[in-house]
Amino acid sequence: MSTAQTSRTQVAIVGAGPAGLLLGQLLHKAGIDAVIIERVSADYVLGRIRAGILEQVSVDLLDEAGVGTRMHAEGLVHGGVELMWDGRRHRVDLNKYSGGQNVMVYGQTEVTQDLMQARAAAGLSTIYEARNTAVHDFDTARPYVTWDKDGQSYRLDCDFIAGCDGFHGVCRASAPRSAITEYEKVYPFGWLGLLADTPPVNDELVYINSPRGFALCSQRSKTRSRYYLQVPLTHHVEDWSDDAFWQELRLRLDDEGRERLVTGPSLEKSIAPLRSFVTEPLRFGRMFLAGDAGHIVPPTGAKGLNLATTDVKYLCNALVEFYRDKSEAGIDDYSRKCLGRIWRAERFSWWLTQLMHRFPHDEQITAKFQHAELDYLTHSEAGLRTIAENYVGLPLDFAERSLM
Amino acid sequence: MSTAQTSRTQVAIVGAGPAGLLLGQLLHKAGIDAVIIERVSADYVLGRIRAGILEQVSVDLLDEAGVGTRMHAEGLVHGGVELMWDGRRHRVDLNKYSGGQNVMVYGQTEVTQDLMQARAAAGLSTIYEARNTAVHDFDTARPYVTWDKDGQSYRLDCDFIAGCDGFHGVCRASAPRSAITEYEKVYPFGWLGLLADTPPVNDELVYINSPRGFALCSQRSKTRSRYYLQVPLTHHVEDWSDDAFWQELRLRLDDEGRERLVTGPSLEKSIAPLRSFVTEPLRFGRMFLAGDAGHIVPPTGAKGLNLATTDVKYLCNALVEFYRDKSEAGIDDYSRKCLGRIWRAERFSWWLTQLMHRFPHDEQITAKFQHAELDYLTHSEAGLRTIAENYVGLPLDFAERSLM
Repeated sequence: MSTAQTSRTQVAIVGAGPAGLLLGQLLHKAGIDAVIIERVSADYVLGRIRAGILEQVSVDLLDEAGVGTRMHAEGLVHGGVELMWDGRRHRVDLNKYSGGQNVMVYGQTEVTQDLMQARAAAGLSTIYEARNTAVHDFDTARPYVTWDKDGQSYRLDCDFIAGCDGFHGVCRASAPRSAITEYEKVYPFGWLGLLADTPPVNDELVYINSPRGFALCSQRSKTRSRYYLQVPLTHHVEDWSDDAFWQELRLRLDDEGRERLVTGPSLEKSIAPLRSFVTEPLRFGRMFLAGDAGHIVPPTGAKGLNLATTDVKYLCNALVEFYRDKSEAGIDDYSRKCLGRIWRAERFSWWLTQLMHRFPHDEQITAKFQHAELDYLTHSEAGLRTIAENYVGLPLDFAERSLM
Repeated sequence: MSTAQTSRTQVAIVGAGPAGLLLGQLLHKAGIDAVIIERVSADYVLGRIRAGILEQVSVDLLDEAGVGTRMHAEGLVHGGVELMWDGRRHRVDLNKYSGGQNVMVYGQTEVTQDLMQARAAAGLSTIYEARNTAVHDFDTARPYVTWDKDGQSYRLDCDFIAGCDGFHGVCRASAPRSAITEYEKVYPFGWLGLLADTPPVNDELVYINSPRGFALCSQRSKTRSRYYLQVPLTHHVEDWSDDAFWQELRLRLDDEGRERLVTGPSLEKSIAPLRSFVTEPLRFGRMFLAGDAGHIVPPTGAKGLNLATTDVKYLCNALVEFYRDKSEAGIDDYSRKCLGRIWRAERFSWWLTQLMHRFPHDEQITAKFQHAELDYLTHSEAGLRTIAENYVGLPLDFAERSLM
């Protein structure tokens, strides 16, 4: 292999998922140069089916990045969500109990596509299929990133490295072990997801606590449904035929749901594990972790993408402060600021997961506690507000206020 | 043993704890005859140290029973409670966030004494030290209770039996196994309590989530403190000297607490296990369970006595309806009505227990979730209201509203 081809940028972004792409776009708007290095191909990135619920704060950030047009045209605004337990349903009026906020149904795949197109249109550089990516010297003022592509080695000198490369990425793995604390909880079940071009069983999402396990009726549009079933970790997706999926979903629905359910062939079917994970801190010298590289939530409540967008917002602000105001205050405070928000979302995702799932070896009383909690929360105005304000997303400065 | 001496009453109450005594008093006010049969002596009943926080609804019921004079003179009205975690304290303004309600610090021992005196003053019959108490034929319209005392057998014919005889009592044990479902959770730790004639460390109660385990700074008056420490179930009270107790409490307090703590010799010291337990239903023909006979909460949040008083209120109302209105609607609905309220208090007590204690084998992330939940709840108005409205006690008709 020949000597590395060397280039320079201000911010090297590792990972072209929504976090990396959004950061690239926001930095571009702020006049800061960035190059994105991604391990896989653009098509592979777009092939990953992920969450589909955007908080208002994420909607605002996508608008700020200039990529909101299709989202506003095609996305569905949801002002409520339904909870089902003990054979009953209760609609939580998110709009009413959050003081007028909503969520937006718009798939992560669509967000990624919009960001990719904007990046291409602006002529910004993304290197896909970069092999052996490594991050170097981020404990100095002259960090750099190296990778191989098509038999050639590359080196990118930069001021900062943004680790947007997900849970299995190289950035967190490169942080010194002595400087890092990792908190983790692995849940003893997975979510079996099925995507189908059928109209959703309900206008809004339905979260179901059933004696047979959790189920979620979600959607990507008025003609595309996304359903999930809690399954044991021992299950394999190959063992779940479409028929078996629909039959099990029916058993977890109520009569109204069974009547309205439209089934059809699956476009995609997969099993995802559930994990709570947080890295502290999120900054290591001149390297920052953002999104899944720094933290994972179980999908219950759809906080993953929304945490990534807010990490990116804090990081962009900190970098703007650095370049424009010559101040390191923002980058010094990045970790603390993100973690305040992250732990609140981790708490909510863990809480909603515990509230809605059956756990192996649960005592009989556990389901009764779940029902009592759902009964209480949905019949107390304060309880409804705690659900609504977390579901639509706490304000960006909530953690700041907490620390005052 | 000679033939049983037989007598008759309308309601035979088994157990002269606060539930049985309050029921007797309320029935007396309503002109319904009742006799109380108690296994142990009055002094033994009064020697049991129990909780000391009355919800407004309990205060009102004691007033209704005509035994509120000393409570109002000596009890302390608390409009707030403090939570401590991660080295910080936060006062929850119960009064503000519950719409003007408070709790009353007045020991269960005092409540029992006031009820005993009122019963004696009214010349009402309580049989103490009744041995071999048994309940009979409560699946018919002619139930009766038998017991032995001083070598003589007794039989009390009645219309109804009220089982106020606690968790280990004969009433629940006599219900047909096939008709009963019991839900239970035993917690893997106990509370080591110490009573001392020292001024409390704080004007209001302090609930402490510490890395060394839970602690509670409670009180019975301005000169009598009650402190608790979470201890492993393997510990014995004999192994805890007063000095060891105070030393461990200091380690769980903050600097302010350590400075203000006044220690002294213990008046009482004991270890109590923590349990969540609910029996469904609470009515078996002509026998009703009320208070600990039907359900147990862990002491966190002090709901036990308050649930007993409200069970008794519902039961008294049902019996008044039966005798005055010739309607069985109240007794038919007793179980459902009580259980609605009971499960909400069970949920709250379980939740507060989980939030404030360290559990064996907890992952590191669990304490972070606890801190995040406390951070969230104490900095969200809705969160504060959920704590306050449960702590001061949900309204008597809350569960009714939930079922609408």
